[in-house]
Amino acid sequence: MWRHRDLVGIEGLSADEITHVLGQAGSFFEGSRRQAAGPRPQSRNLSGKIVVNLFLEPSTRTRTSFELAAKRLGADVVNVGGPSSSAVKGETLLDTVKNLEAMHADIVVLRHPASGAAQFVADRVDASVVNAGDGAHEHPTQALLDAFTIRNHKGKLSGLVVAICGDILHSRVARSDALALGKLGAEVRLCGPRTLMPVAPESLGPTVRSCARIEEAVAGADVVMMLRIQTERLQGPMLASSREYSRTFGLGERVLALAKPDAIVMHPGPINRGVELDPRVADGPHSVVLEQVEAGVAVRMAVLALVAGSDPVAAPGSESLGAPS
Amino acid sequence: MWRHRDLVGIEGLSADEITHVLGQAGSFFEGSRRQAAGPRPQSRNLSGKIVVNLFLEPSTRTRTSFELAAKRLGADVVNVGGPSSSAVKGETLLDTVKNLEAMHADIVVLRHPASGAAQFVADRVDASVVNAGDGAHEHPTQALLDAFTIRNHKGKLSGLVVAICGDILHSRVARSDALALGKLGAEVRLCGPRTLMPVAPESLGPTVRSCARIEEAVAGADVVMMLRIQTERLQGPMLASSREYSRTFGLGERVLALAKPDAIVMHPGPINRGVELDPRVADGPHSVVLEQVEAGVAVRMAVLALVAGSDPVAAPGSESLGAPS
Amino acid sequence: MWRHRDLVGIEGLSADEITHVLGQAGSFFEGSRRQAAGPRPQSRNLSGKIVVNLFLEPSTRTRTSFELAAKRLGADVVNVGGPSSSAVKGETLLDTVKNLEAMHADIVVLRHPASGAAQFVADRVDASVVNAGDGAHEHPTQALLDAFTIRNHKGKLSGLVVAICGDILHSRVARSDALALGKLGAEVRLCGPRTLMPVAPESLGPTVRSCARIEEAVAGADVVMMLRIQTERLQGPMLASSREYSRTFGLGERVLALAKPDAIVMHPGPINRGVELDPRVADGPHSVVLEQVEAGVAVRMAVLALVAGSDPVAAPGSESLGAPS
Repeated sequence: MWRHRDLVGIEGLSADEITHVLGQAGSFFEGSRRQAAGPRPQSRNLSGKIVVNLFLEPSTRTRTSFELAAKRLGADVVNVGGPSSSAVKGETLLDTVKNLEAMHADIVVLRHPASGAAQFVADRVDASVVNAGDGAHEHPTQALLDAFTIRNHKGKLSGLVVAICGDILHSRVARSDALALGKLGAEVRLCGPRTLMPVAPESLGPTVRSCARIEEAVAGADVVMMLRIQTERLQGPMLASSREYSRTFGLGERVLALAKPDAIVMHPGPINRGVELDPRVADGPHSVVLEQVEAGVAVRMAVLALVAGSDPVAAPGSESLGAPS
Repeated sequence: MWRHRDLVGIEGLSADEITHVLGQAGSFFEGSRRQAAGPRPQSRNLSGKIVVNLFLEPSTRTRTSFELAAKRLGADVVNVGGPSSSAVKGETLLDTVKNLEAMHADIVVLRHPASGAAQFVADRVDASVVNAGDGAHEHPTQALLDAFTIRNHKGKLSGLVVAICGDILHSRVARSDALALGKLGAEVRLCGPRTLMPVAPESLGPTVRSCARIEEAVAGADVVMMLRIQTERLQGPMLASSREYSRTFGLGERVLALAKPDAIVMHPGPINRGVELDPRVADGPHSVVLEQVEAGVAVRMAVLALVAGSDPVAAPGSESLGAPS
Repeated sequence: MWRHRDLVGIEGLSADEITHVLGQAGSFFEGSRRQAAGPRPQSRNLSGKIVVNLFLEPSTRTRTSFELAAKRLGADVVNVGGPSSSAVKGETLLDTVKNLEAMHADIVVLRHPASGAAQFVADRVDASVVNAGDGAHEHPTQALLDAFTIRNHKGKLSGLVVAICGDILHSRVARSDALALGKLGAEVRLCGPRTLMPVAPESLGPTVRSCARIEEAVAGADVVMMLRIQTERLQGPMLASSREYSRTFGLGERVLALAKPDAIVMHPGPINRGVELDPRVADGPHSVVLEQVEAGVAVRMAVLALVAGSDPVAAPGSESLGAPS
């Protein structure tokens, strides 16, 4: 089933492959919950393996999630990045990764500001590369954990209506989510200020379309996913102000009432409370934001185990996962 | 005996509870010393548990001490904080901690610049919260390690005279120490420049009183504890200069001679050598500064093990430790 | 054989001692390669030991290399350093290390901007100190991994001609390499702009001499080692420009053709591609740059194991390794 050495993006994955990851994640998810009470015996699928978190953009949540996932699998984990890294010294990304590989890193989890960075590296090294976000391109594990969370609540993805609202243009989360949810048969509605919408959103899949107003996107939706608005954008020429943004594209109780009564509300975090998401909604009964975080660790455990080849059905001659074929 | 899920402060602890922690710390302390020669078999009380060090103020010593304590107990430890953390992105503290909890963090060790941060979080999450310093409020593990070190040298706390000198007003160490030592029966003398003294020091306990001059505080003392003076303060309007401070409130051999002949000298570190503490005293025979550091790891092992519920006598329906009752 | 508690520099090491480290490193090197395919069972020589990486200068590669080496040996590893460390608070280096020792650190791996820092500390603490680079003084593990890599390719060091080119004056790598390779019987040619050459290069050993031009240094060489030129220097009064530097002291295919046909090209990294090293040479068939990185982990495993006393022939009353005797 699993033939991939890397996870670069959702784009090159089949629906079956996505479903396979979600299935693997399911057992890790249940395992963690069951063990939360008592001592938590760790799986050791990655015992003796080396996972390097190479984060060349600031991040706490994703790095911590990958770090915990790798540690629970028994790997040795090293964090690289931040102001004291060699990146400061002007080394190329490829040299950095090849160095980590020479130190016998088995998996490099890469976050990088440039779109395409993960694919570029994956094509040139033998170590497994897992994309933890590359520019405005993809953030595949976020899409997988979102799909996991939705399926957990709705039992399926097919036929669901998912509204994704915010800065679609710059969001790797929106891109990966639209691709993943589209492949699994959901209808995806993208919505945001005109200046923050891509030119051709429908290129993300046959079931993807755009909506000019949030009310239109949310109407009858099963899932409402709000994106974080970068405060830099709120100071630039593309948007008026955070108050204006909140009024026109934020999710409060009034707009949420337009969705299905059992709709779930999602957010990749960190939340700008009161900007894109009203605190009453963020903390309300429809919110599954913290379940997304919980699912994140399980999904990343599954991805790490699969790219490392601990899938019993993995073939030896594997190729990049998520590379456009 | 132990009914607490959190350690927020010394304020809500009984003398018996403090003594219980010191007792637990004692076995870890002895164990580490015994094993220092040979291989050091680790206790595994926290095997499979996740400890997150969430340090939102700079710190090396306390973070390292907690990290080593958790690792020796077999926990998986993740450090969060610093300039690359989500705090930069404007996420609220509570959202950050709830996210860590969703990732199945069992214990969050929190350092935060705001007084009351630890209690605020502990009241709102299920994970155990251990306060590693919150603003000018409390630093309970520092007080516990100080009490441990004093007891190690003097055999008891009750009836001892302890002088604490420095910037009492802004010092969470002074507050926690005065509370802990007072509860254990010591007489506590607080001393510092008038601009850096609290309005009502005696509110910290019936055996706590203030002294205007260091000579008065040290006279006949069993323990002299010097606080680090923040160099920012020495440039502000509250103090003249570091030379002036050293002459009037620093501890040198002349003043130390006023204490009991077997007095011990303590400092929470890092020391400003030549400002609050003369190097000859810091490195002299009365100094127990490095024993404090050693005790710190043992005390933190005890605290982590106790809040995680590895105390055999711990009751299931536990409450916050150190919350005012 | 091994009588040292610290590794401060190559200067005080005998040829036999260097050869002993290389031998130990060899088994770790082979072990890692053998296990790269299957699960990698870790040696546990440092199980229960605490290794602290105290890096007070930016570094990724060396810190990561030591961190992985220590983790593969089963040690608990803590990283200290960077902008959030106590160094910011003005604590002295010695106080910082004594604090780490009080927390039962067994080995402190130290990088520091001041020449002599490692020796200074090693003389004053009981914990083992491993110098990971101190100012313009020494970087002994780099020299050991370079010697290891050369021996791996040439079978021996004795009688080889090694050209070291770049900023010799400020390079701890050049110093440690010249010392190590000279002791092992190689002829060492140092070469660089006149402003970046030491006054008396021959003081590094009887087989060390300097060359004014890179062509002279490389002619007939078995090994060409290029140093990283600090871009700061290229903006200062000592050098013209990076283009000028590249033309006169960079290694391209034209100059490399002057070396022996089977010459190997080395670089401690990170490489300034196109400045001191032409990318075609860096990625060409003569380059062993990534093997140096791989050897680095093995050499550091050997050093950590030896200073920790896991050498079966180690005597109890050991002394500093690399201290001038």
